[in-house]
Amino acid sequence: MFLTSINNDKVKFWEKLHNKKFRDINQLFLIEDEHLIKEALKYNIVKEIITTDETKTYAIPTYYVNDKIMKKISNQESGATEIAVTEFLKTREILGNILVLDNLQDPGNLGTIIRSAVAFNFDSIILSDNSVDLYNPKVVRASEGMLFHINIVRCNIIEFLKKLDEDYKIIGTDVLKGKNIKDIKFNKCAICIGNEGNGLSKEVKELCNDFAYIKMNDKCESLNAGVSASILMYEVANE
Amino acid sequence: MFLTSINNDKVKFWEKLHNKKFRDINQLFLIEDEHLIKEALKYNIVKEIITTDETKTYAIPTYYVNDKIMKKISNQESGATEIAVTEFLKTREILGNILVLDNLQDPGNLGTIIRSAVAFNFDSIILSDNSVDLYNPKVVRASEGMLFHINIVRCNIIEFLKKLDEDYKIIGTDVLKGKNIKDIKFNKCAICIGNEGNGLSKEVKELCNDFAYIKMNDKCESLNAGVSASILMYEVANE
Repeated sequence: MFLTSINNDKVKFWEKLHNKKFRDINQLFLIEDEHLIKEALKYNIVKEIITTDETKTYAIPTYYVNDKIMKKISNQESGATEIAVTEFLKTREILGNILVLDNLQDPGNLGTIIRSAVAFNFDSIILSDNSVDLYNPKVVRASEGMLFHINIVRCNIIEFLKKLDEDYKIIGTDVLKGKNIKDIKFNKCAICIGNEGNGLSKEVKELCNDFAYIKMNDKCESLNAGVSASILMYEVANE
Repeated sequence: MFLTSINNDKVKFWEKLHNKKFRDINQLFLIEDEHLIKEALKYNIVKEIITTDETKTYAIPTYYVNDKIMKKISNQESGATEIAVTEFLKTREILGNILVLDNLQDPGNLGTIIRSAVAFNFDSIILSDNSVDLYNPKVVRASEGMLFHINIVRCNIIEFLKKLDEDYKIIGTDVLKGKNIKDIKFNKCAICIGNEGNGLSKEVKELCNDFAYIKMNDKCESLNAGVSASILMYEVANE
């Protein structure tokens, strides 16, 4: 279908998907990068394609638009050439190692962490209710498509950790009272990473069975949250 | 001194420091975060303070401005309350392990890498001419003040690597033909990290003595550049 008016209801609907609440109500988000769209198509979660390229055809509903409309729908300043309207990712049962993110705020950090979690064979990421939205366009882009390869659950992490199977070791991070990550035996673990500025919340700390730290120079108070999470997962993968 | 006009020459000068070329000509950059300013003051590199708080006094030239002027000078949308006009950092002789950044583009990545380099006792960072500017405000912020604690040299990295002492091992990253990082003996090393999208340039690869990779799941093609650099430096520090 060809759309030419910026006031078309479809265009207005897609534009509203920039807003988290509207995404949540409709359980839909936008993907703009070409290789991410290809990835999403493999999973049969793309509902509609919006493109400026009239030569392209897809087996799903496709809308051909002009540059002006595309610029309105795109999150990028320079605009995109193709956008996929995509269903929220399904969640599944938790089976292996878990990363728990407690009030993580930076979208680049979440994308980076998703990428590392897949690299280091983590089974699931549990995202606290107050963390950055998984479907924020910057998260989707920074994940480099890895968000399709891992189970990501958004929930109340306190309730989640309380109900977690006893065979899981819940490990927090603590620069002062932690054990060197190299000295911790893992088996099945839930590693908890806190907020960029304030670290783990008191409530999560109280539920931890053990604390880990990454040995570093005294001049440096802490690492970037994405780096900390990645090094801890790397150590678990290489134990 | 009190400044009230947005057209004051001083205000215009500071505003121009948003521009890389103007920073390079004047060898000055702006710091906006309060704790970074405190850090910079310790190093005697702050030339002027600009503040909206008339109760504050400093031993260096201080300019009291209104919110309108502050907003014009600040890089943050919400504006700042205090800004330090700071001299470029001095470089020194290279003594220990080096991280070489080849066309790194993302300011958040550079800030994160500076932080990790200090944490893992690296001596110097060598930044290629075509990498993101060290004094980009996002780099300064993401470094969390760690840029004051490490020697950072911007230069032609090809010339630099060619002249490097023979006792340094130049190590590139290569997912396909690299050795597992765990199996490499380091001693004195120069670890080379490439561009976010394209990895290391051909010219740098040709100068490497060895290549390393970080073992990861096949689903994941690569890690975020800041994470890769951090894990490699972590391994060197913990060898």
